[in-house]
Parts: sequence; C-alpha cells; structure tokens
Amino acid sequence: MRLSLPDQRTFARFTDLDADLVVWDFASPLPGGDPIDLAVRPYVLQGDLSLLDPGRVRAVQSQTLGYDDAVGHVPAGITWCKAVGVHEGPAAEIAVGLLIAAQRGIDQFARAMPVGRWTRTWSPVLLGARVLLIGYGGIGTEVRARLDGFGVDLVRVARTARRDEHGEIHGIDELPSLLPSADAVVLAVPYGPETHHLVDHAFLAALPPGALVVNVSRGKVADTEALLEHAANGHVRVASDVWDPEPLPPDHGLWTTPGVLVAPHVGGAVTTMHDRVEALVR
Amino acid sequence: MRLSLPDQRTFARFTDLDADLVVWDFASPLPGGDPIDLAVRPYVLQGDLSLLDPGRVRAVQSQTLGYDDAVGHVPAGITWCKAVGVHEGPAAEIAVGLLIAAQRGIDQFARAMPVGRWTRTWSPVLLGARVLLIGYGGIGTEVRARLDGFGVDLVRVARTARRDEHGEIHGIDELPSLLPSADAVVLAVPYGPETHHLVDHAFLAALPPGALVVNVSRGKVADTEALLEHAANGHVRVASDVWDPEPLPPDHGLWTTPGVLVAPHVGGAVTTMHDRVEALVR
Repeated sequence: MRLSLPDQRTFARFTDLDADLVVWDFASPLPGGDPIDLAVRPYVLQGDLSLLDPGRVRAVQSQTLGYDDAVGHVPAGITWCKAVGVHEGPAAEIAVGLLIAAQRGIDQFARAMPVGRWTRTWSPVLLGARVLLIGYGGIGTEVRARLDGFGVDLVRVARTARRDEHGEIHGIDELPSLLPSADAVVLAVPYGPETHHLVDHAFLAALPPGALVVNVSRGKVADTEALLEHAANGHVRVASDVWDPEPLPPDHGLWTTPGVLVAPHVGGAVTTMHDRVEALVR
Repeated sequence: MRLSLPDQRTFARFTDLDADLVVWDFASPLPGGDPIDLAVRPYVLQGDLSLLDPGRVRAVQSQTLGYDDAVGHVPAGITWCKAVGVHEGPAAEIAVGLLIAAQRGIDQFARAMPVGRWTRTWSPVLLGARVLLIGYGGIGTEVRARLDGFGVDLVRVARTARRDEHGEIHGIDELPSLLPSADAVVLAVPYGPETHHLVDHAFLAALPPGALVVNVSRGKVADTEALLEHAANGHVRVASDVWDPEPLPPDHGLWTTPGVLVAPHVGGAVTTMHDRVEALVR
C-alpha cells in the first residue's frame, strides 16, 4: 500500500501506518517508484489534475465534498473519492448560523459594535418561518436535522419527488409553485449543468418580498448579477457562504448592499476538519 | 370582564371581544370606573408599578418572561402573570445564533464587509463541542430542542439534579466540576438572589481557555467587570444578548474587546411577538 499526502503536516498523521508514505502536493512532478494506491489531494484547491497518470495513481482522496472542478479533468482509470462525512455537519451549521444571523440582525449588531451603538430593532424570526431546503444529499440531511428543533415549516426539495420518514420531499420541478410562499431558501444542491444558475432572475422574482436566500452549495448555483439586482432593489436578502467568483472582488457591489451577508466560503474550514479527513483516509 | 391594553395598537387587536376595553399605559393615572380584571403591561418596561391599586386591578399580564423587576413592587392581592409561551422560542433561537456566529466568525465576516475583505480563517465549530446549558426552564428546554441536531455534547444544569427522557440534568452545585471541560456555556436561568453574579471571576477562571459564554438570561447573572477582564485577557469569548447595564454605554470596553459579540437585548423583539401576546391574553 502506497499513500501520498499533500504536505508534511498531513504526512505526520499517518507515520504509524504499515504503508509506504510519500509527500505529493499535486503540483510538483509525481514521485518516482511504485504506483500510488491513494493520493490525498490538498484541501485548498491547487495543483494540476493533468499530472495524474493512471499508470501511477490508482485513486484520489479529495478533501472536498464537491467535485465539480474535477469533472472532465481526471484521467480515465483513476477512482475519485469525495470527502464524505467531513464537511456536511460544519456546512449545515454555517447554513443555520447564516439563517439566524440574517433573520435576527446579528450581522448588523456586529457592525454597530466598533462605534458602541445599541440599537434594538424588531426583526423577523426563524420560528414559524417557511424554509425551503433545496437539495437533500449529505448537507441537506444535516440541515434538516439541525432545523428540526426550531419550529420552522420545512419544505424539502430534491431532484426526485419522494417520501421518507420525515414526510414529503418535493421534486425540483415543483419549485415554481413552492417559491412564492417561502420565507427563506437554503441551497444545498451539488453544482453541475442541472443546477448552474438555478437561482436566476425568474427564481428570485418568484420569491415573496423580503425572502432570504442562503447558499452553502457552490457560488455558480446562483446568477451573481441576478442576486445583486434583486438584493439591491430590496426584494430579497442574501446570506451566503459561496459566491461566484471567489474570492468576491473587493469592489463588488454585494459587499455593501443592504440585506446581504457575505461569509468567505468557510463551510468546511473548521479546526476539527483534519481529524475527520484522517479518519476517512484510515 | 374589563381589560386594559397599554396602547391603541394593542387595543385594536381585541375590539371583537365581548369585554370592556380601556387603554392604560401603566404611567398615567389608573382609569376610573369598574376595576380592571386584567391589565396588560407595556412590553418595553416603563411606568410605575406603584400605580397598581389592588382595589382597582385584579391581575397584570406582563409581556416579558422575566419578572425580576416586579418582585417587591407589586402590591399584595394582585396576580402577576408572566408571558409564558411568547419569548422562549425566539430567545433560544438567538442563543443558538450567537453560539454559531461566535464559533464560526460570522460577526467578523460582517465587520469585514464594508471594506470588501475576504478573509478565510479556520474556526472552532459547534459540532462535537461540549455545551453546558445552565437553566432548564422555558428557555433552556427550547435551547435543548434546537441544539439536538447539531452533534454537540450537551450537558444540562438546573437548580435541582434530576433525570428526564433526555438523560441526566446536573445540579447547579456540580458547576465547579463541569466548567473545566466546557467549550461553551449557555445561560438561561431566571435572575434572582440565587443567580446574581453566578458568572463571576471564579466561574470564568474555571472555564478552559477559549471557552465561549452565551447569555440570554439577564445581564446581572454575570459580573460585567469579570466578563470584561477575562475577555480582555483572551481567556474567554462572550456572545450575549443581555448586559449589565442596559443599554451598554457607548464607551464601554466590551464593545471593542476582541472575542466579544454584543446583541442589544433582542431575544424577544421579533415581529411575531404581538401575535403570541394576543393569543396569551385571549
């Protein structure tokens, strides 16, 4: 068994293994010697997937759940393993955190602090709100579990309509009839051709005034220009962890549009992540 | 049945009732005529409880859950009704919102927005954290329900040790042995002589470095000077909705101490509150 790790710190976690360990960062040339059975990819995306030689690398362990940047770039014959069980909980946690922060104005309180401004306002609340959860895979199921105790009217939407032990899951084709009554939307779909710009002008226009859009999927699931327009005219609010492009340029209008809360793609960036990656690799 | 409402807007909600309605704001003289069977107190605390005449007012319906400011000021013979079922959910929601915001840095993201600063950081996470929930009445039970899906190690503490369907509830006398392993503490106790300055120097010193203190109870449950000292030296972080004094003065050190998140007592200030008060009065 030959295992490559992307850096020395990760390497050090596996030195007890009865395996041939090597450091490879997906940017420098592939190490010589025996083929690598499993190559662990760096978390912060870098390197060049075209360096992967199917004669010398059998499988790749990604540290991300999304694999949209790998589609079409991994040579045939190499198995791609996404990081199942690493990010779903923390990403769902930031989704609920953004939901509450935007509803209750926590972002505005934070901005008032440097000037010592105590401003009580009446705010919307999550309790009793209708939340449309779009995408019911790894992150979506964790969002549902977390929202369970909040007294929300949760409406789940997935690619295929079905029922489970929690009730009805609507098909994504039902969105036009579901959007007009949503107080908030949480996006937890994988990114791909089917979900590219799912949140476009028509989607946003179908939401009721003041609705909140929370995205913990991928930035390109939303049309950035449409988001900016409908937030700037006050029709929707946006609290998102993912953007298109990333990083959001310093002069982008979304930074300063009222009703917008920008988190810098930190859904998975928690200090316990490396422990879960280690467990997955082992 | 004679019912007094604190303002015209509240009055207008009850005009369909077969009752004698009158507006009384707890500040102007008591209205003449028949005794008031139920006097609804203004939500934003004002007026003078000494105006309550037990010969002319039978009961008071408060719009708050806490009654610490009424103890000792309500004449004998008048029944005091606290606002059960109005604020517990929204207060628990802000508690969880503050927990997530502080753990994941949402307050820092909000403050970075006006200058368009995209700063990814590795943050602590709620998932897997040990959360000490102190107080298990109306708000505490709602906090527990909301934290259920977050994968936290929840340790509940109440006045009296007991067990329920969710497991063990520790007695408050066990705090010294529980504090050293807490990643976060949520305070949901009623305020009174027993809980005055519960969070003092000894309490904070017993917490491990970096622990987070969330208060949705009353400001005086914590010793403000102790909070400031232990936050300023980096030993604890604080994310609280209640403070002593309120409003926190503009030049107070807590506003600008790193690791402190100030919400301006908005646990109950949500737009749906008046509907729940109306239901309670009816």
